[in-house]
Amino acid sequence: MVQTPNKQLTHLKNIPNGYPVVGEHIDVKESTIDLEAPLEEGAILLKIHIISADPFMRSPMKGNDSGSFFPPYLIGQPVYGVTVSSVVKSNNAKFNKDDLVVGITNIEEYTVIGPSNPFFNWLEIRNETKTSGLPLSYAVSVLGMPGQTAYHGLLQVGKPKEGETLYVSAASGAVGQLVGQIGKQRGLKVVGSAGSDEKVAYLKEIGFDEAFNYKKTSSITNTLKELCPNGIDIYFDNVGGEHLEAAIENANRFARFPLCGMVSTYNTKEAVGIRNLMSLMPKHITLEGFGVSDYFQFNDQFTEEVTGWLKEGKIQYRETIAGSIDEAAQAVVDIFHGKNFGKQSIYVSDPSF
Amino acid sequence: MVQTPNKQLTHLKNIPNGYPVVGEHIDVKESTIDLEAPLEEGAILLKIHIISADPFMRSPMKGNDSGSFFPPYLIGQPVYGVTVSSVVKSNNAKFNKDDLVVGITNIEEYTVIGPSNPFFNWLEIRNETKTSGLPLSYAVSVLGMPGQTAYHGLLQVGKPKEGETLYVSAASGAVGQLVGQIGKQRGLKVVGSAGSDEKVAYLKEIGFDEAFNYKKTSSITNTLKELCPNGIDIYFDNVGGEHLEAAIENANRFARFPLCGMVSTYNTKEAVGIRNLMSLMPKHITLEGFGVSDYFQFNDQFTEEVTGWLKEGKIQYRETIAGSIDEAAQAVVDIFHGKNFGKQSIYVSDPSF
Ligand SMILES: NC(=O)c1ccc[n+]([C@@H]2O[C@H](COP(=O)([O-])OP(=O)(O)OC[C@H]3O[C@@H](n4cnc5c(N)ncnc54)[C@H](OP(=O)(O)O)[C@@H]3O)[C@@H](O)[C@H]2O)c1
Ligand SMILES: NC(=O)c1ccc[n+]([C@@H]2O[C@H](COP(=O)([O-])OP(=O)(O)OC[C@H]3O[C@@H](n4cnc5c(N)ncnc54)[C@H](OP(=O)(O)O)[C@@H]3O)[C@@H](O)[C@H]2O)c1
Repeated sequence: MVQTPNKQLTHLKNIPNGYPVVGEHIDVKESTIDLEAPLEEGAILLKIHIISADPFMRSPMKGNDSGSFFPPYLIGQPVYGVTVSSVVKSNNAKFNKDDLVVGITNIEEYTVIGPSNPFFNWLEIRNETKTSGLPLSYAVSVLGMPGQTAYHGLLQVGKPKEGETLYVSAASGAVGQLVGQIGKQRGLKVVGSAGSDEKVAYLKEIGFDEAFNYKKTSSITNTLKELCPNGIDIYFDNVGGEHLEAAIENANRFARFPLCGMVSTYNTKEAVGIRNLMSLMPKHITLEGFGVSDYFQFNDQFTEEVTGWLKEGKIQYRETIAGSIDEAAQAVVDIFHGKNFGKQSIYVSDPSF
Repeated sequence: MVQTPNKQLTHLKNIPNGYPVVGEHIDVKESTIDLEAPLEEGAILLKIHIISADPFMRSPMKGNDSGSFFPPYLIGQPVYGVTVSSVVKSNNAKFNKDDLVVGITNIEEYTVIGPSNPFFNWLEIRNETKTSGLPLSYAVSVLGMPGQTAYHGLLQVGKPKEGETLYVSAASGAVGQLVGQIGKQRGLKVVGSAGSDEKVAYLKEIGFDEAFNYKKTSSITNTLKELCPNGIDIYFDNVGGEHLEAAIENANRFARFPLCGMVSTYNTKEAVGIRNLMSLMPKHITLEGFGVSDYFQFNDQFTEEVTGWLKEGKIQYRETIAGSIDEAAQAVVDIFHGKNFGKQSIYVSDPSF
């Protein structure tokens, strides 16, 4: 029984409120794994290549699963998240050695996952990624879960019509930068907000009609009034709170608000209330919460269309990729402070093919 | 030039916050009208028979029209509202003497209205009411605007499916009592809340499966948990605030929330925030504000179906009708304290036919 070193991103302590801190709530710990151990019926052994740092990971840090898709992280155990990996060994007819796999797994260098894991059925074999000529990391970013979220949320929930005005918050992030660019492909006027001047400059560069640094405006409502003189038809909400109230103030009649996330509230001690829902009635605004998995039936259409745009250079996509699993805890924690520029991922290892 | 006495429900003072008070903000004042005066091109002279007391009348009392359909009431002028009247004199080919008219007019004993009035195009000729055998007051209640609101809001926005659970707040009111009964006609489990034990008993009487007095429960959330063990699929929101938060807590995946009104917030000094919108995403809840006028194209279907139910005794409808225009100010003010039982209207005069 040979033990191989196996670093894990480990949950140290639940956080009911406030920001997660490296070393206190989450950290990378040394562990080992026996790569020769026999696999249970249906299980596979994966070698992880890329880890995705995602805002949803704040939710299972709370130690309870109320109001969330996600079961809590267990203290002292590796956390789970979205990864790109390849199959080292398989005891499952569906998976072959060297298959490229994308989905939710434990975050560690090597991991075993089998049918008893609630996320097992979500694992996708993405072998086309080996030969697509596109970066492997795209499988968890523009061509993965954040990309699907942008595409399904804007198209299925937002139901855009050419010429309408779209506002998207956290617009330079993993989801937001694609939302805005899909909006442009569909003939919308696109306005975005982000938390630094560099991010705002990037938004202009990739074709947003207007963009602003929300940290430098005294009133998001007034800024939106200026930048959206015809009002907002679609607000793609990544942030909640003040951004959502300001978008309601500026919404047109029959506006659609795909509610994707509310990252401004994930680490606050007091739940922030939205005070202007009264405007939903005279304006006939629709707020629709959604999860990316509600629309997996449209994933093939998504992959085809977005891959096409990437290859034709019609859209761009910015990622920040940390250089090793040792940086995983910091990378996750940093997204809640907006330190990521574009999609934040972590490189772990190269595939063997 | 003979002047005829003409009492008017008059706006005395704007109310930015708090409850309206008779004599301070609104009152019935003596006035006169010359019934022989020539009518402008397109105008008509109406004799009012029934006045409807509606919660929306709080909105133009604010003295500004932001975020509302409704232009502000003018100080010292008659307020407008929904009335049943008949044509005394017409200078408009569409309207004949003795036509029965329903719509938004000034609230006074006689009133002149013409094409320059923003509500003129909403006036409906409802002569079938003369011979239907149903009370005239129904034209502003179960067969009028509140009835249309219930019908369109539940069917078009709520999209009910047999066997689902519907919760409706302010359930014994003008809109709510019909919402619940339409729900029963469509095969739903129906749960309602109201502000007194008598109202709750009435709800049971007209077929609600469950009903509760929200003033006597320490937690609407927990009460709903008990009364809706399968969760809520549709919440028809008349009240907002705590009721809305509690319905979100108890909502099922893919629940629809037709947002009709938020009467609990109309007279509060501080806007109340809804704090649990984060649950909209994992549950895929849709909040859709609507106005009755967004669905006027379905009014014929509404009139036919609801008239049928009334004639066949399949639904009941409770009204409270004040006995004269002198009581109009008090009747309007009282609805914000829940003193109405069922639809609140005011009798003014009999038609001459
Ligand atoms: N519904 C779903 O299925 C689904 C799937 C994926 C993601 N999401 C949600 O989508 C949103 C975006 O996710 P993502 O993966 O694209 O993350 P991301 O945008 O790449 O990273 C999060 C960004 O949020 C911004 N942010 C953090 N705190 C903020 C605050 N208080 N106010 C305003 N902005 C703040 C920061 O950018 P700035 O520098 O601009 O502040 C940060 O970079 C999140 O709410 C996430 O939970 C939902
Ligand atoms: N969207 C539209 O086009 C449209 C059209 C018509 C009406 N509406 C809205 O629909 C709702 C119901 O209107 P309605 O005409 O049927 O009025 P209603 O229910 O006949 O009268 C209002 C009722 O609201 C309840 N209420 C008052 N303050 C409350 C509070 N703080 N908390 C809980 N309940 C309270 C009272 O009943 P209790 O004794 O039960 O408290 C009162 O009887 C209102 O919000 C109204 O603005 C909207």
